[in-house]
Amino acid sequence: MADYASHFGHNNIPYGIASSKAHSSPQCVTRIGNDIIFLADLADKKLFEHIPAPLASVFRETTLNSFAALGRSVHREVRAILQGTVMDQRDGCSEPVENENLHKPVHIGDFTDFSASKDHVLNASEAITGIRALPPAFQNYPVSYAGRCSSIVVSGTPVSRPLGQFIEDYTAPQKRVIFGPSRALDYELEVGIVIGKPVEPRQRPKASDADEHIFGLVLVNDWSARDIQALEMNPLGPFNGKNFATSISPWVITLDALEGFPVAAPAHTEPVAAFLSDPRSVNYAVNLEVELIRNGTSTTTCKVGFQTMYWTFRHMLAHHAIGGCGLRTGDLIASGTVSGEGDTEHGCLLELSRRRRKPAQLNDGSELRYLEDGDIVRFKGRAGIEADGVGFGECVGAIRSAE
Amino acid sequence: MADYASHFGHNNIPYGIASSKAHSSPQCVTRIGNDIIFLADLADKKLFEHIPAPLASVFRETTLNSFAALGRSVHREVRAILQGTVMDQRDGCSEPVENENLHKPVHIGDFTDFSASKDHVLNASEAITGIRALPPAFQNYPVSYAGRCSSIVVSGTPVSRPLGQFIEDYTAPQKRVIFGPSRALDYELEVGIVIGKPVEPRQRPKASDADEHIFGLVLVNDWSARDIQALEMNPLGPFNGKNFATSISPWVITLDALEGFPVAAPAHTEPVAAFLSDPRSVNYAVNLEVELIRNGTSTTTCKVGFQTMYWTFRHMLAHHAIGGCGLRTGDLIASGTVSGEGDTEHGCLLELSRRRRKPAQLNDGSELRYLEDGDIVRFKGRAGIEADGVGFGECVGAIRSAE
Repeated sequence: MADYASHFGHNNIPYGIASSKAHSSPQCVTRIGNDIIFLADLADKKLFEHIPAPLASVFRETTLNSFAALGRSVHREVRAILQGTVMDQRDGCSEPVENENLHKPVHIGDFTDFSASKDHVLNASEAITGIRALPPAFQNYPVSYAGRCSSIVVSGTPVSRPLGQFIEDYTAPQKRVIFGPSRALDYELEVGIVIGKPVEPRQRPKASDADEHIFGLVLVNDWSARDIQALEMNPLGPFNGKNFATSISPWVITLDALEGFPVAAPAHTEPVAAFLSDPRSVNYAVNLEVELIRNGTSTTTCKVGFQTMYWTFRHMLAHHAIGGCGLRTGDLIASGTVSGEGDTEHGCLLELSRRRRKPAQLNDGSELRYLEDGDIVRFKGRAGIEADGVGFGECVGAIRSAE
Repeated sequence: MADYASHFGHNNIPYGIASSKAHSSPQCVTRIGNDIIFLADLADKKLFEHIPAPLASVFRETTLNSFAALGRSVHREVRAILQGTVMDQRDGCSEPVENENLHKPVHIGDFTDFSASKDHVLNASEAITGIRALPPAFQNYPVSYAGRCSSIVVSGTPVSRPLGQFIEDYTAPQKRVIFGPSRALDYELEVGIVIGKPVEPRQRPKASDADEHIFGLVLVNDWSARDIQALEMNPLGPFNGKNFATSISPWVITLDALEGFPVAAPAHTEPVAAFLSDPRSVNYAVNLEVELIRNGTSTTTCKVGFQTMYWTFRHMLAHHAIGGCGLRTGDLIASGTVSGEGDTEHGCLLELSRRRRKPAQLNDGSELRYLEDGDIVRFKGRAGIEADGVGFGECVGAIRSAE
């Protein structure tokens, strides 16, 4: 297992859910270096006593939802305490990460996936249709669809190749629909936010007020079966092509940790509606990387910065809520594939291999079109430079044959 | 309030969640005529003693999920007892329906909406494009999208007109996108199934085995803002055009109640994949009706039979699970708009008014294009004839102005 100690410095203070031999019930933890710190144990030492929230019980829950719901001012107080005193007080409250099981960090009541990268939609459009075209609404708002909550799994969970119906050969004169294991299994490199303080139905926060509702960020792999997806997309969007598995990283990285790494989002080329207007239009300087391991040999297939995203999470949240839709604590809102302009910045294989027509070369000598059984896909993310100590760790999944 | 006593005869035995002054905590109930019967109270009388399930505590839960998860053999035993002895034993366990608050009957972890009616997709296609065309995959499987769980409300909850961005006038040379309250608010007459016994990930039940996982059926109004939806649909499907509200009826009508009303589903015109092949391809003879009340005057805008659906719930469930996706107890899977061939069988206003071009006449003298503030939409459903005593009651919602 890769060592991510440098991702979890004192500037980070991520939140997750862990269990171990000594802590058999999954509960809330943070991580410093390779130490997992059990927050309820710290609460029992009265470390959070002046905070008016029942943290000892909240931290014993099996998801982060109750903690996330407390809102950013409580999160900031907890963070300050953890950054200030935890090094001295963690005796008896911490265990090495290799002893731990890391669980899905939140209960997710609704999962929304956006398509917020302009480069991704242009690249994907070109791979599919030959034309670099934006979706009709792309300049007006980030487009999106609802995903499948029951299929969201934590990093490390194997991903089985889905079965489905798809067109055998799009280049054949007769577009025959066949049934079988997907032949076009892909990853999608994404980042997601977890909702903290809920948005009530019809509350409609503006983009400029959205941060208050963001608990933190996770890495997301929106596994996609391109052949199954291609047949079903028109007119209702992706369904079985996506709903078999979505992986998320075990650590929620708070906005407070990321606020040291703001970077201006790309300027909008067309005016936007007032509720999307955002004087502080920021992304975070998160460097993302995809590693594909085939036959034991690793190849880096993508390096891209999250700052490339045309629409920010603040835009996504505001657009999501504008109709009157509420957002509940724990809801996952993902960015869609993160891609840049360059050839090394493709966040999915549909783009990288131009829908199979231009296979990439892997370091084991094989050609990369789509994922093969046994492939391991690892996402990593880090804000700033190594010395900053703010990373996401990894989001990893190994492909199993259809079963 | 309409009187639905005749919907709830001894052949029905629906399940719901109710609370009252005397039963202040929402809990599991059934209904006979206009009597609401509290099932935990019956359990306390040892009526279910021989059934190996902790029914007294299950029936005190605030949703039907735990009961639904017990599976059809337990449901059948409970049903037999309720049909056999409840008339004599319900003293002290029942209250008149007018004393009750009826709550959302299940916790819904994922909501999927299909598009299973061939007449609906043909009619909608014609209203939008002028051409009666099926979606590319329609002959291969029922197409579908994931909906929004947090916006599902029980019948009776008012529905606020959503805000959003949409094209002001599709007939204008310049397609200007504006922001404001939807001007094309619609209903969609649907029926949904609630999952009982869960489908494990990669379990993949065939259509012919799907009934085992169906707890029962509800009426669904998939409220839709056609203008918001039209701009966002390409390529990811409906989102803000649908996610502001979905209403469901408070009573879950079991498959056991509906099994007396089987009717052959329409024959398929093309062969289907083996897992969708279903020797017992049945719908249920449920007569659905839409009543629109404007300015206090009622107009019946649709009468259609559920037997028209091209794809059955058995097909929908099998298609949903074939990729490997699990289904959890309480999941809602809706049929999509139920429409027939005739002019009086349009399950939504997009079809009925041909996207505004052919307004219908309401009994208050006004023209019906889309819904106006103050309109009340009531769905009703009944299996067989009145004497059969198996109905759904109603699914009703009043339109409020955007707020």
